Amino acid sequence: MDNTKYLKTVLIDKLIENEVTQVEDVTIDESRLTLYLNGEKTISMMCIPKDQDAHAIGFLMSENVISSLADIHQIEIKEDGLRVDVTATINENSLANLYKEKTLVSGCGGGVTGNDETSLKIPFNQTSFKVTPYTISSEIKIFYRESELYELTGCVHKAMIYLLDGSTISAEDIGRHNAIDKVVGKCKLQKLDTTKSILFVSGRLSSEMVTKAVMHRVPIIVSRTAPTYLGVQTAHKHGITLIGFARGKKMNVYTHAGRIDV
Amino acid sequence: MDNTKYLKTVLIDKLIENEVTQVEDVTIDESRLTLYLNGEKTISMMCIPKDQDAHAIGFLMSENVISSLADIHQIEIKEDGLRVDVTATINENSLANLYKEKTLVSGCGGGVTGNDETSLKIPFNQTSFKVTPYTISSEIKIFYRESELYELTGCVHKAMIYLLDGSTISAEDIGRHNAIDKVVGKCKLQKLDTTKSILFVSGRLSSEMVTKAVMHRVPIIVSRTAPTYLGVQTAHKHGITLIGFARGKKMNVYTHAGRIDV
Repeated sequence: MDNTKYLKTVLIDKLIENEVTQVEDVTIDESRLTLYLNGEKTISMMCIPKDQDAHAIGFLMSENVISSLADIHQIEIKEDGLRVDVTATINENSLANLYKEKTLVSGCGGGVTGNDETSLKIPFNQTSFKVTPYTISSEIKIFYRESELYELTGCVHKAMIYLLDGSTISAEDIGRHNAIDKVVGKCKLQKLDTTKSILFVSGRLSSEMVTKAVMHRVPIIVSRTAPTYLGVQTAHKHGITLIGFARGKKMNVYTHAGRIDV
Repeated sequence: MDNTKYLKTVLIDKLIENEVTQVEDVTIDESRLTLYLNGEKTISMMCIPKDQDAHAIGFLMSENVISSLADIHQIEIKEDGLRVDVTATINENSLANLYKEKTLVSGCGGGVTGNDETSLKIPFNQTSFKVTPYTISSEIKIFYRESELYELTGCVHKAMIYLLDGSTISAEDIGRHNAIDKVVGKCKLQKLDTTKSILFVSGRLSSEMVTKAVMHRVPIIVSRTAPTYLGVQTAHKHGITLIGFARGKKMNVYTHAGRIDV
């Protein structure tokens, strides 16, 4: 995977106490990607212009504007990758909600959502999928080891889906919302089943991250950092197993611990 | 300052390998704050419901919906702190832009913005304000030492404004956008001059963070982590000194190094 095209070199003054040296530094690209839905400009997102089709699909599913890949008739990436055109059968109510609710989300990754954690009409997640603590511990180690753009720039978030067969799909973005949308979109494009999977996220688990797991029917969400109280409540209410502070062989299971096979 | 009201206790399963212990853990409150402008519901934000008036003022100024505190006639916090009502003389164009542009921002702290980094109509920042590397290094140390909610929950961002007289104003939130809006709003409420000040931010410097410094005429922005390329470009174009990776006695000056007095 050639990620160098998302890197931009800048000339900086490196200071150590009062000593200045001019050196080159590498920063990550950040672009405005605009999503057109059935010919109309729907929304723009600040992101790394990569995996735009997966990003659009994941976002539209996160917001319940489409309910599956089958709703999409055509998807095209245009204007040097800064525009995605989606032709799809859409849920007009959810699209209207996205505008009407205009909720500014809090989490690293930013965004706006029309979902309201108090009124998600998604059935309680009852999947019998179970994992061992060992799987969580070993996968989160791999998750952090293999983050190329982060290594290079210190400026990206990552999301990874661990599937039933032990394989994984990953995505990186400057925003953790985007990273989740992209990784889910990638799974959908590859027709992979995410109903028995684990979503690993590099940032904090605020309510909207958990809501994405709810919307995509991913039963387990894991982070090495903290959840918010509303994140915990949302997971509790919708049957999601929420794991925070997964570090080394330790982890905190906040909700639905029955899926952890000790 | 009593911050305990923003903390919520949850019962968790703490796992170390296969050993489970039930313990209490503390999480941060995350609430939906709704902003009403001249009687109309304008936007909601996921945040810590604290400093709501400062939050609303900073946000409206960030988005150029109001240009100063003088535009505000009345501000009221209602519904147990989950609603802010602002009566103000507003810039209708900027408000319309906020809806029309609907740009999902990328950064930790989330949000939507109507600002477009390519078309900000703010004059180039030419202030002669200078600081020594020592000031940056010693203030960032204090910045991280005094972050109470972060200490308790590992789940908040912080923003701090260092003023010309050496005093500082701080704010914390689950989102770094919110933290910046809050700290700027606090300065405005106290009628403090931020045109010769430094903005310290706990997260990455993506374009929208830098744009907030531009909008509020804060000449220097500092983070211990990385900027994006668009963040660097925005700072360069608008005369903002951008410092990243400020750690110990080291820092990277990405733009307008003339304000650093070595």
